[in-house]
Amino acid sequence: MNTEVITLHDRVDLPAGFQAAGLGAGIKKNGKKDLALIVSDTSAAAAGIFTTNQVQAASVKLCRERLAQGTARAIVINSGNANACTGERGMKDARKMGAIGARALGLEENDVLVCSTGHIGACLPMDVVEKGIEAAASQIGSDHGLDAAEAIMTTDTRPKYCTTQILVEGKPVTLTGLAKGAGMIEPNMATMLSFLMTDAAVDPAALQTCLKDAADQSFNRISVDGDRSTNDTVLFLANGSAGHAPLDTTHPDWPAFKAAVFALTHDLAMKIMRDGEGVTKVVTIRVQGAVSNEEADCAARSVGNSLLVKTSWVGNFPNWGRVMDALGYSAATIQEDRVDIAYDGLPATAGGLAASTPLDELKKVIERSSFTIDIDLHVGDGEAIVYSCDCTEEYVKINR
Amino acid sequence: MNTEVITLHDRVDLPAGFQAAGLGAGIKKNGKKDLALIVSDTSAAAAGIFTTNQVQAASVKLCRERLAQGTARAIVINSGNANACTGERGMKDARKMGAIGARALGLEENDVLVCSTGHIGACLPMDVVEKGIEAAASQIGSDHGLDAAEAIMTTDTRPKYCTTQILVEGKPVTLTGLAKGAGMIEPNMATMLSFLMTDAAVDPAALQTCLKDAADQSFNRISVDGDRSTNDTVLFLANGSAGHAPLDTTHPDWPAFKAAVFALTHDLAMKIMRDGEGVTKVVTIRVQGAVSNEEADCAARSVGNSLLVKTSWVGNFPNWGRVMDALGYSAATIQEDRVDIAYDGLPATAGGLAASTPLDELKKVIERSSFTIDIDLHVGDGEAIVYSCDCTEEYVKINR
Repeated sequence: MNTEVITLHDRVDLPAGFQAAGLGAGIKKNGKKDLALIVSDTSAAAAGIFTTNQVQAASVKLCRERLAQGTARAIVINSGNANACTGERGMKDARKMGAIGARALGLEENDVLVCSTGHIGACLPMDVVEKGIEAAASQIGSDHGLDAAEAIMTTDTRPKYCTTQILVEGKPVTLTGLAKGAGMIEPNMATMLSFLMTDAAVDPAALQTCLKDAADQSFNRISVDGDRSTNDTVLFLANGSAGHAPLDTTHPDWPAFKAAVFALTHDLAMKIMRDGEGVTKVVTIRVQGAVSNEEADCAARSVGNSLLVKTSWVGNFPNWGRVMDALGYSAATIQEDRVDIAYDGLPATAGGLAASTPLDELKKVIERSSFTIDIDLHVGDGEAIVYSCDCTEEYVKINR
Repeated sequence: MNTEVITLHDRVDLPAGFQAAGLGAGIKKNGKKDLALIVSDTSAAAAGIFTTNQVQAASVKLCRERLAQGTARAIVINSGNANACTGERGMKDARKMGAIGARALGLEENDVLVCSTGHIGACLPMDVVEKGIEAAASQIGSDHGLDAAEAIMTTDTRPKYCTTQILVEGKPVTLTGLAKGAGMIEPNMATMLSFLMTDAAVDPAALQTCLKDAADQSFNRISVDGDRSTNDTVLFLANGSAGHAPLDTTHPDWPAFKAAVFALTHDLAMKIMRDGEGVTKVVTIRVQGAVSNEEADCAARSVGNSLLVKTSWVGNFPNWGRVMDALGYSAATIQEDRVDIAYDGLPATAGGLAASTPLDELKKVIERSSFTIDIDLHVGDGEAIVYSCDCTEEYVKINR
């Protein structure tokens, strides 16, 4: 997948035929934006992927149900309350959120998707939510994407978005993504929401496969704290306003479309990492030479989730011994005397032993705001990559 | 196993026929004690359990090898350097530590066990170690147990020890344990060393089984940070100085002996938790109603290792939603609407939903320096218990 030709813009240019809104309805106590709408003028192919947690928010259950039809028109999103662990009342409230949105926008209930993020275990203040949705519906516009990006934030310090354009059948096509993350970010979906929109026409099944593949290389590769949330959701709407023949895997422009989706999700995933709670460093952990790709993944995640490894980065110390330790207790097969570890290309460990690179040079790498740890296990051909971050005192402060 | 009749004393009363020493050899840069000896006047039955990490320190490999004979006379221990990830040189140094100890104490090399704890990846300063062992050998005495307990410390803030007495065949028998812990503490052995001594006479095979069973209920149930070390070792010497017929599982006093060992290891494990890096609270997580004991264990460890759960305790907030979340992503089977969660007996969650206990009452529980979270999954009969702790800003400070 060659994503290098894709140029990404730090803007929210909604694709043709999309409108959005975002405002403070009063769900959050601090008056910040907490309610967003994303609306397509016409029926859009819709795809979604969701948390693998066994405890799932009401909105996740509802989205799964409604995506069966493969199309949607709008997404109603609230932040500040996850509507998770809220039982039947929670399901009723999620449906009601959708119904209020449908009524306010003049749509069918089944065409409205619903997402929530925030504190777990409390019921939604439905009167506040209702007024908020109605107000948002009266404000939707094609230039309100940033408001929506702001309204889905929780402990994020900044909104996250990205826009790119490609040509399909010679016609310009726009892809735009919004995301929120910050905490409970873990492989296999983070506490994150992301909404992708495009004016491309895409076969719903192809859209779903493309989204899943892209998420597996982006959102499912990042880890802030190893906790997987109840609400993780990525939705992708493609409304076909660009006016070309529908894309599927056999279309000559499919590779370009797929590359754009991969680039978009990768960019959003990195923005989530960079804005992770208390994060000062984003660290890429690349494992090769594992018995299998699965074992490489286990090894990379074990290192990326190790609290001792993550705290050692805060202190700017190249503590490769802790990396060896985390490899050793991972489910991956390790032969201690074969392991090589390098920091941005500088060998720290050779054959399981300290390499000759001077400590000061390794320290300089760890001082960077992003660097890569390359691990070669030398026991096979498996490889994997994960993105981790340091665990700072600030993280504890935010979550305590 | 009735351990309630066992009276534990916060003292290091070495059992008859044991001597110890502890001093600062200069392995630690700060001048603190870093070298300990434990010596039995006569050949002792010896048992040991070790880290499950695939990367193992040289001393662990050497102890495994030497324990095959089922007896030992002495243990040489250094802190400040783990002698792990040090390859052939590390194995040679571990053997040399044993040889120096054997020579200084007039013992056979095979009768000397070796342990190390500290920084991973650097070779031992063997000249310093040699002088230290020789000095320690000249200082051993039956009243120097506390010195040894201090000399095995790393980031521990205080030495950990415990003594108890029982009667075997009417004769008083003493059991004493030393331990160090503090960081890299995780289920399936922590970054911890523990040394148990008794003047009871015990069949080596029975001693090994007893130690394994006791560790499974104590050291293997605690978690500070989810990291498993390369050096974890628990050794148990029983020298028979008490002068009774050897204990094995058929001896009428075996249950009393086993209860004493269980009580001793439990006490040491709790002392390790209480002194965990940055720890202000020790939390017992008790899961019942799981599909199996194994699943109960998965569920309890998922909650006990969740960074979001552990940081929420710092803030004195009963965030049961995070507990639900951690249960949901565990490998245990969960039915969300059956889960009950209680804090020191006060229901926080009933059938997966918020229970009616006022928030203020739950907060009072979380403010305690120790409390119990009872989780009933209501899907089977499996149960398990783990001991966790809060993750504070201090933890990050210590490990950065």
